Amino acid sequence: MNTLARAVVVVGAGAWLAASPARAQDPLPSWNPGAARDAILKFVADTTQSGAPGFVPPAERIAVFDNDGCLWSEQPMYFQLAFALDRVKALAPSRPEWKDQEPFKSLLAGDLKGVLAQGEKGLAPILMAAHSGVTTDEFEATVTQWITTAKHPKTGRLYTEMIYQPMLEVLAHLRANGFKTFIVSGGGVEFMRPWAEKAYGIPPEQVVGSSGVVTFEMRPSGPVLIKEPKVEFVDDGPGKPVGINRFIGRRPVLAFGNSDGDHQMLQWTAAGAGRRFMGLVHHTDADREWAYDRQSHIGKLDKALDEATAKGWTVVDMKKDWKRIHPFDK
Amino acid sequence: MNTLARAVVVVGAGAWLAASPARAQDPLPSWNPGAARDAILKFVADTTQSGAPGFVPPAERIAVFDNDGCLWSEQPMYFQLAFALDRVKALAPSRPEWKDQEPFKSLLAGDLKGVLAQGEKGLAPILMAAHSGVTTDEFEATVTQWITTAKHPKTGRLYTEMIYQPMLEVLAHLRANGFKTFIVSGGGVEFMRPWAEKAYGIPPEQVVGSSGVVTFEMRPSGPVLIKEPKVEFVDDGPGKPVGINRFIGRRPVLAFGNSDGDHQMLQWTAAGAGRRFMGLVHHTDADREWAYDRQSHIGKLDKALDEATAKGWTVVDMKKDWKRIHPFDK
Repeated sequence: MNTLARAVVVVGAGAWLAASPARAQDPLPSWNPGAARDAILKFVADTTQSGAPGFVPPAERIAVFDNDGCLWSEQPMYFQLAFALDRVKALAPSRPEWKDQEPFKSLLAGDLKGVLAQGEKGLAPILMAAHSGVTTDEFEATVTQWITTAKHPKTGRLYTEMIYQPMLEVLAHLRANGFKTFIVSGGGVEFMRPWAEKAYGIPPEQVVGSSGVVTFEMRPSGPVLIKEPKVEFVDDGPGKPVGINRFIGRRPVLAFGNSDGDHQMLQWTAAGAGRRFMGLVHHTDADREWAYDRQSHIGKLDKALDEATAKGWTVVDMKKDWKRIHPFDK
Repeated sequence: MNTLARAVVVVGAGAWLAASPARAQDPLPSWNPGAARDAILKFVADTTQSGAPGFVPPAERIAVFDNDGCLWSEQPMYFQLAFALDRVKALAPSRPEWKDQEPFKSLLAGDLKGVLAQGEKGLAPILMAAHSGVTTDEFEATVTQWITTAKHPKTGRLYTEMIYQPMLEVLAHLRANGFKTFIVSGGGVEFMRPWAEKAYGIPPEQVVGSSGVVTFEMRPSGPVLIKEPKVEFVDDGPGKPVGINRFIGRRPVLAFGNSDGDHQMLQWTAAGAGRRFMGLVHHTDADREWAYDRQSHIGKLDKALDEATAKGWTVVDMKKDWKRIHPFDK
């Protein structure tokens, strides 16, 4: 082929791809046909067709996703808690006093049930110990080390393998149509950022989460940021619209969650003017993942499910709507 | 011209533009030849040429800019303070008790000097009154109304006209080369977001600033976010690297400031590995703008200037380096 012909082919292909990215291939191959899949595709079509009543200018195409239970699994415990437990065990040799202090004593004796039975009082010191007393650079290195080696107790997989293939496809389809995708999670922002780009294609500056107080310190070796043992912001429940306002500064047009912790984020998204999409991942698949909702201690989905039903928000039935759950599933 | 020939021309022009965006035209036409202009151009060239020792992958091309005195003027007072004073005057009829309360009493009597003489004690209640007690949507509307009508006392221009043309060119040149540009300012994040995109091409989600506490409330009419009269975060001095860590989650490779309030942000940027750019705008032009540095109460530049000189950071001499200051200058 000569240069001229090649140029024509390139231009032709480019124009065709630009005009119909969705038609080139199914953007949601892991979704079964049904109302949820239809609603996602229709929302993207309605908001991106210039001149259509639902059109949203590219700058306003903000899409937010919860993480735990929405982009990756959250059973039998939040994965960040698994990180914290491992971290405390790793730190224990340098903290001999923990042998006699609860909740560390129970944890180090292998009595996880004893820790969990202490509730918030048991978990808070463990989370604090695991997430403070280091620089932000040191913490990032610790998370990266853990996330690339630690295995899930049930599946034996890396935690970042336990992400939802259908949701990856939603993220990619949105981005291919000019949406900016954000995580808005109750999880720690510095826990998620080191791996979210590789796992989800979401860069650090588009991750919103809970955070601890961080302070600047000039050391002889240079400036560092120290993670202090103090909660700064809890990005959960009513904190989610607050976090969206603080970090993003624009109301999303699409929000996806899976629990009552996402309820206010969905309400905040729904209350904006124009075309909106509110979605919930409903965990209904005890065989391939987990099944839980109104009675669950983790990812409780009750009030948000009622409002979703009443308002016609999209509820994804994991068992019916998803052909595969994780990328490693056949 | 037939379609085939047109396609070839388009492809040809596209390839040429893509290969040499900087050569197509001078990206910094408002800069005089000199060390500052050279340093900016060289930094962008060094960091974007694939395979070069200073190459920075596109995802890591984070550039941060202070706002007051770096992207727009800040004399004779921070423009946000002018907003707050106007706002308190506008609210006064509904707050009759202010007639007898300082600092409102002095302000409403036209005694601005009396207000300023009270220092922090005088300004804090005014800033608080101007920035709280409303929803975030109401506040945005108020800022938008003010910024599109209020005039600067010296120039008679809209405040958003008093932005620096040379810095707009730096922002555009960086973005044309794959950098993501952020504001990192001591100013209020919700004060800047409504107009930063139009003025600088920087979207709300790339504006980092100081903030007040905001709370979620479900009203009969729907959910709102209320701005509370309580400071949450001061994004100034050591707060700037903290704000960068919190909002962006990546260390910048370029930072531009103009005062000691930007010192730690510059230090934090400088301490990263690889090619870096640290810049200061030095206000040296009493005729076309203002001249101030070590002794100024606004935008004091002292310690950061010493470190810039010692370390070879780029110091922009506004009088010598800038052909024009504001877009409206001939």
